[in-house]
Amino acid sequence: MAALRNVMRGLCSGHLSLYGIKSLQYKPTGILCQLPCKSSYQRRLFTNKNMMVELDSNTGVAVIQMKKPPVNSLSLEFLTEFAINMEKLEMDRECRGVVLTSSIPKIFSAGLDINEMYGKTPEHTGEFWRAVQEIWLKLYGSNLVTIAAINGASPAGGCLLAMACDYRIMADNPKYAIGLNETKLGIVAPFWFKDTMINVIGRRATEHSLQLGLMYSTSEALKIGLVDQLVAQDKIMTTALSVMSEWLAIPGHARQITKSMMRKPTLDRLLTNRESDIQNFVNFISKDSIQKSLQLYLEMLRQRKG
Amino acid sequence: MAALRNVMRGLCSGHLSLYGIKSLQYKPTGILCQLPCKSSYQRRLFTNKNMMVELDSNTGVAVIQMKKPPVNSLSLEFLTEFAINMEKLEMDRECRGVVLTSSIPKIFSAGLDINEMYGKTPEHTGEFWRAVQEIWLKLYGSNLVTIAAINGASPAGGCLLAMACDYRIMADNPKYAIGLNETKLGIVAPFWFKDTMINVIGRRATEHSLQLGLMYSTSEALKIGLVDQLVAQDKIMTTALSVMSEWLAIPGHARQITKSMMRKPTLDRLLTNRESDIQNFVNFISKDSIQKSLQLYLEMLRQRKG
Amino acid sequence: MAALRNVMRGLCSGHLSLYGIKSLQYKPTGILCQLPCKSSYQRRLFTNKNMMVELDSNTGVAVIQMKKPPVNSLSLEFLTEFAINMEKLEMDRECRGVVLTSSIPKIFSAGLDINEMYGKTPEHTGEFWRAVQEIWLKLYGSNLVTIAAINGASPAGGCLLAMACDYRIMADNPKYAIGLNETKLGIVAPFWFKDTMINVIGRRATEHSLQLGLMYSTSEALKIGLVDQLVAQDKIMTTALSVMSEWLAIPGHARQITKSMMRKPTLDRLLTNRESDIQNFVNFISKDSIQKSLQLYLEMLRQRKG
Repeated sequence: MAALRNVMRGLCSGHLSLYGIKSLQYKPTGILCQLPCKSSYQRRLFTNKNMMVELDSNTGVAVIQMKKPPVNSLSLEFLTEFAINMEKLEMDRECRGVVLTSSIPKIFSAGLDINEMYGKTPEHTGEFWRAVQEIWLKLYGSNLVTIAAINGASPAGGCLLAMACDYRIMADNPKYAIGLNETKLGIVAPFWFKDTMINVIGRRATEHSLQLGLMYSTSEALKIGLVDQLVAQDKIMTTALSVMSEWLAIPGHARQITKSMMRKPTLDRLLTNRESDIQNFVNFISKDSIQKSLQLYLEMLRQRKG
Repeated sequence: MAALRNVMRGLCSGHLSLYGIKSLQYKPTGILCQLPCKSSYQRRLFTNKNMMVELDSNTGVAVIQMKKPPVNSLSLEFLTEFAINMEKLEMDRECRGVVLTSSIPKIFSAGLDINEMYGKTPEHTGEFWRAVQEIWLKLYGSNLVTIAAINGASPAGGCLLAMACDYRIMADNPKYAIGLNETKLGIVAPFWFKDTMINVIGRRATEHSLQLGLMYSTSEALKIGLVDQLVAQDKIMTTALSVMSEWLAIPGHARQITKSMMRKPTLDRLLTNRESDIQNFVNFISKDSIQKSLQLYLEMLRQRKG
Repeated sequence: MAALRNVMRGLCSGHLSLYGIKSLQYKPTGILCQLPCKSSYQRRLFTNKNMMVELDSNTGVAVIQMKKPPVNSLSLEFLTEFAINMEKLEMDRECRGVVLTSSIPKIFSAGLDINEMYGKTPEHTGEFWRAVQEIWLKLYGSNLVTIAAINGASPAGGCLLAMACDYRIMADNPKYAIGLNETKLGIVAPFWFKDTMINVIGRRATEHSLQLGLMYSTSEALKIGLVDQLVAQDKIMTTALSVMSEWLAIPGHARQITKSMMRKPTLDRLLTNRESDIQNFVNFISKDSIQKSLQLYLEMLRQRKG
């Protein structure tokens, strides 16, 4: 009995050779790559206009820092760059996990860039919406371990990015809030935002949250499960990397199949309805009333800045 | 950054002109009506046999007080009146929200009236059940903001009415309890009672609750999320109206679409199976064994009263 | 009012004659049997190789003690015996509830017997998997009240057995843990393990739990709802029997229909996909890589024991 418990404990702590062998065996089958200890330390850097990606090939962990002033708004360019980076990392046999964070002080991401929706052609608006769908499909469906290190405010699309990850750590700052606040702006979170939120915080909390467009303080977000953990601002990256190493101790192939089993129905629902979802968005945004509202909102933003 | 946070805060507090404009724009499209400040204060009163409806056209809030002694039992007459009132308010461009409460001391509603099920023709029983379905469809599918001010005991059908609202405030009195206790009476909550409860408290709590026909104390109800808030008995209406004003600060059109997105699948499930659900109920209630049980139950009620 | 409240309280406490009558009335319709007080006390004992079943016909409660050293691993023989016993109890008009527990110190059940998966023919592996499905179908779909008295460690298949019951009481011992830890062993919990867990602890906790193969301490298990109650080790059977008597106070027919309404969709999902689920398991287990892993694991177990 005691022996068995020790074995179980050993298995739980992930130190058994069994894992290494399993992961090596799985290597040929696909994207997965688990790196045993290496003597040479390697760090690769991809700097793009809107984000910086740093892959430590020793640990297999990539850190994506969003760096688009002033608020990491999700423009078409930003989303396209992000999707290409995710694609690269997904295909990179040295990468096993991604930490998503921001290099802009006090903000994780303010969500969708309203400039992409105001005064644009239906073609442009449709292309933009497809890019929003694409980054969610890539993040929510990623084989990599994805951890959001939420080091600032995270409304709307920013909250969506965080919710699409496997685990959410938030800096415990009373000034930061997180939530899908679309309703407050007079717009409606699409069904796959809603589905993602239900999968994180459950149906009742989602209904309440979406009807009122609630923004949660960090402690409220922890309480309802919108984030998994709060840490001091200066501990967020070390915590994220430490949590990541626990996740990477799990045999990757089994973890990936399990993740896919949990998320596939939600992913499939958007894949099946992708074109009609784009059409709905374009129709909604093209309305005179919505364009007028966006105009007022943008003017207000400009005045506040000026 | 600070400017943006101020904007966000402004948007959250709902004081921006953006809202007013959006709501005016949406006015022509349907039921929604959001009233900016008015100089003339208006209060309209509809008094029916079983309930009193008071609409304050200044705030857009209607208060429905159930007043059918001794226990606000849901008779066919009561349900028909209720449905007509809901229909009226839904169509009334001045009405934006409903507070549902009771004017009977210590009781919100004791649920379905057993007299409607005992010794009646299948036609009558079927008509009664259709009326139960109808009030749930109207409440659960309402475009209005619906708040239950649960100022007394709320078993069975009383709990269903409360669960169909958007938000539940309960008077914190140790003598009050709430729950779907059908199983304890030897009957079975139909699938849409179950669906409604799952949408409020989740699947496990619902399974536990329905198998045992659990009645929850106010603190237990708060803990499992069956109610959202507890307040002192004498604060329940002021709290309900204060919460209502927060909900009414949200752009109505976006809130309504969001609510519909959350609830439509559950509503559709009853709409699709409405006739078979009536047939099931009539067949079940017509059984000799059930009629005998109802007879004993009614006799017992009479003895206790006498 | 007071009278009605007394009635309600009476109904809640389950002492009204209504219940007795209802249950007698239902007796002819099926499996259910509720026994009013009897003068002659009866206790029947079925001792099998791997478990001991004791049915107290006075209370209608059967206690199943798993007794397969060293760790109650779920072998084909064990599962077959278990399924036959469940079938017998289900058909026995004197039986109304089952308490599932272990007579092996410190272990409830260690889960599936890996010997049944290593070096066996596809036919054998398929037969084994069908037996795993069968015991879950029997437990999760049982008309009886099923209570798990988890008096020891309960990983993987052990956790599945517990989750398939109506209620879970766990001995509060810091050395005991419970969870579906398949991922940690490099294997994947099948969809119906996942569905069962979602129905108990919700979607987010399940995703987190299954991706990491988490084993929960007793207090963690209580917190996330994986178990319903913790008690001192020496109080577990008296607590289980006391909880059972509360469940048996509920009219059996209504409780059974309610349970079936909650669980049927989950049961049907496996019934519909039973053959493909077996095929998937056989294919997965037959892989050289998995066989190699199982071999290493078994060798390790033997070394630790030796």
